[in-house]
Amino acid sequence: MNRSLVSRRLELFPVTTQINDGELCISGLSLKDLAQEFGTPLYIYDQATLDGCLDEYRVALRASFPGRSGVTYAGKAFLCLAIAQWARWQGLWLDCTGAGELAIAQAAGVERNKIVVHGVSKSQSDLEAARAAAGTIVVDHLAELKKLAALKLTGGGAFPSVWLRLRPGLAVETHHYTQTGQPDSKFGMSPAEIKLAVQLCRSSGLGLTGIHFHQGSHFHDPAPVEPAIEAALDLLAELEAQFGWFPQTFCPGGGWGVPYHEDDLPHLSISDYVSLIGRTLMQGCQRRSLPLPALQLEPGRSLVARAGVAVYRVEAVKQTAHRRWLLLDGGLADNSRPALYNARYTCLPVHAQERLAGESAWLAGPFCESGDILVEALPLPEVQAGEYIAVPVSGAYQLSMGSNYNGARRPAVIWLNQGKINLIQRREALDDLLRRDLPLTFPDPRRAV
Amino acid sequence: MNRSLVSRRLELFPVTTQINDGELCISGLSLKDLAQEFGTPLYIYDQATLDGCLDEYRVALRASFPGRSGVTYAGKAFLCLAIAQWARWQGLWLDCTGAGELAIAQAAGVERNKIVVHGVSKSQSDLEAARAAAGTIVVDHLAELKKLAALKLTGGGAFPSVWLRLRPGLAVETHHYTQTGQPDSKFGMSPAEIKLAVQLCRSSGLGLTGIHFHQGSHFHDPAPVEPAIEAALDLLAELEAQFGWFPQTFCPGGGWGVPYHEDDLPHLSISDYVSLIGRTLMQGCQRRSLPLPALQLEPGRSLVARAGVAVYRVEAVKQTAHRRWLLLDGGLADNSRPALYNARYTCLPVHAQERLAGESAWLAGPFCESGDILVEALPLPEVQAGEYIAVPVSGAYQLSMGSNYNGARRPAVIWLNQGKINLIQRREALDDLLRRDLPLTFPDPRRAV
Repeated sequence: MNRSLVSRRLELFPVTTQINDGELCISGLSLKDLAQEFGTPLYIYDQATLDGCLDEYRVALRASFPGRSGVTYAGKAFLCLAIAQWARWQGLWLDCTGAGELAIAQAAGVERNKIVVHGVSKSQSDLEAARAAAGTIVVDHLAELKKLAALKLTGGGAFPSVWLRLRPGLAVETHHYTQTGQPDSKFGMSPAEIKLAVQLCRSSGLGLTGIHFHQGSHFHDPAPVEPAIEAALDLLAELEAQFGWFPQTFCPGGGWGVPYHEDDLPHLSISDYVSLIGRTLMQGCQRRSLPLPALQLEPGRSLVARAGVAVYRVEAVKQTAHRRWLLLDGGLADNSRPALYNARYTCLPVHAQERLAGESAWLAGPFCESGDILVEALPLPEVQAGEYIAVPVSGAYQLSMGSNYNGARRPAVIWLNQGKINLIQRREALDDLLRRDLPLTFPDPRRAV
Repeated sequence: MNRSLVSRRLELFPVTTQINDGELCISGLSLKDLAQEFGTPLYIYDQATLDGCLDEYRVALRASFPGRSGVTYAGKAFLCLAIAQWARWQGLWLDCTGAGELAIAQAAGVERNKIVVHGVSKSQSDLEAARAAAGTIVVDHLAELKKLAALKLTGGGAFPSVWLRLRPGLAVETHHYTQTGQPDSKFGMSPAEIKLAVQLCRSSGLGLTGIHFHQGSHFHDPAPVEPAIEAALDLLAELEAQFGWFPQTFCPGGGWGVPYHEDDLPHLSISDYVSLIGRTLMQGCQRRSLPLPALQLEPGRSLVARAGVAVYRVEAVKQTAHRRWLLLDGGLADNSRPALYNARYTCLPVHAQERLAGESAWLAGPFCESGDILVEALPLPEVQAGEYIAVPVSGAYQLSMGSNYNGARRPAVIWLNQGKINLIQRREALDDLLRRDLPLTFPDPRRAV
């Protein structure tokens, strides 16, 4: 496999990735050594890459937007105690969906005023958990706002601020599962409903401080964000004229995409995306003589995806009629994105990447279905059973959707920072699979078959 | 909604389902009462339906096949301690994929000679676990057979019998993710490889007792099973002539489909499927003057799907441009089949099913993506927030692929038998989400953003 193809794939790996004597290393540590120490499948997060992506957001925000601005980490991409601690240390806001993610944020000591709660169908217990722990609740629809108003009446103390989720009627281009802004999306309120919501907040004494919309996840062309911001500002101008209300914070969501495969390169930068938003918001406010709200962005994937790498062991190499298969020890249960979204991944062997490329390889996991194919038709060297394979851009929407399908135990996750290793999620054990199970009582087997 | 539509949907529910005074009941118990007692999302399994489906298999086998026959429960469809205990009580074989499912089978006390281990990419530890606990290992490819032969040399004691997995080169018609028999499937061996495998078993002293193939999961037309059995018998005739080996057991896998939606009715019966297999195998052996092997079937879905019902709470009703949405408290995390396979489900309200139908409803869960839609465009009454909805045919490939996406806690599962209720899996708690997490140490937040 020629050096330039290896180099292009390396661009997708964490920023600290190097090849030392033919060994793939992250943060100075050999992936082969890590795989042998912690077992496989192994997920690795590189802090330098996370810090670097966040700096890109912050620098771009300061460069393109003169008002206050901030970044919220979208927990749905990947949330565990350690990453919530990282977000806290970085002074980020944390976006939690429901009581489950809130519990993780609280365990990490994230301050109340940095926690924002999302969700299209929050249960009563989600709302109660949000009341107890969150600084902001993004309200999806009027019935939820009424529940919240009722909740406010039930006791004193701090109560979260409210943002309203607008359904912009404009989606970005991405897989239809991850479009959220279209006119018949399940998410958010129409402009007419937003007006009713502003009145309801006022009459019920809820502290309405922000407006939010989201057009979809994993998009690569930021163009549709511009008309959505303009439409939102038109609505805000009306709200100001009609009710004298204007948001302190304007949040156009997140969803900026990342390159997963060398064929996705080059990819517009975070800075290109952020500056389009910053400029559009600033100029849109000026044009309408509106005050400048704070700008809050909610990246999940584009902050964390590149920081994550999945390492698998090749259990067997197999030839069928027209395909060379590498059969791995992980797949669908830790990464359902190829099956769910036809996501295209690439990979590198952790050792001797520049060996002669063989015919295209198909990488599949151990799961009992043909949807369990991680990588399709990829140029790769003649990898042998027993070798390890590293799949880059594995930091987002993989482990967060992980399952125990076919009795899989969810992988160990390690965190690398300047050559130091921390285990941040232990691998599931066999006992974990039985932890929720309760026995039945049957007589002895009634017949043999 | 008229009575005949309600009746057609009821055909999809467990056999003990009744409507008493407008309340949907299973095994004599009101779903509303169960939802209130155990919370939602709630999964319910009805033992009478399981027992009935199994009887259908057994009766059909006896009626259509004169040799020995048996049924293996496919754990991948849904496995927990209780269902493994049920399988043991029923004298079923249990198909386990890898060490994880094996641990559950062992905890339930399933006898070694009733445990069969599958998997396209078994790790060394899977093979070791199978050696220790299983009666039969279905070998997927030659490299695995060599590993197994090496393992046999490492110690004495009982060693599992071997079946060989043939890649029949003929798939059934189903979603391409669940086709497994096609020529470039990752599963199984070609006829030429099977011949090598027979020789290798002989030379290494492995006890070769069966042949296995599988053409795909959730198919509705059994026709493609016939040529696959004929092709397998052609190969077996060659193997007998060439090596004097003939299998004790012939296993044409499983994968028979079920109706999920009233539009899938009528559906060919289990008996139609089984008798085609029984006749084809018997006549094929006669025609070739081959002995009659034992016939072992591996149904998962068609045994357990109808026994399961998922109950959700309607958290909100929402109208967008052209859609009436019912927003539920579960979805993608407990049932990814609509997103993965475009599976089409139906449902009934647990109360007053015969109310006037409103416009078509779209049922979505609380998860932050548009792929989280459980039911599309279904005629339903004007259901209100706070009501419960029951989704039939929820027993297979739902909970087995369940995740903690968006901080979801996996549902409680109850088992109903003759009016008695047993909790067989407790609902996950908030603490469970943090159980594998280990902390990092960071200084105090370095800056506010």
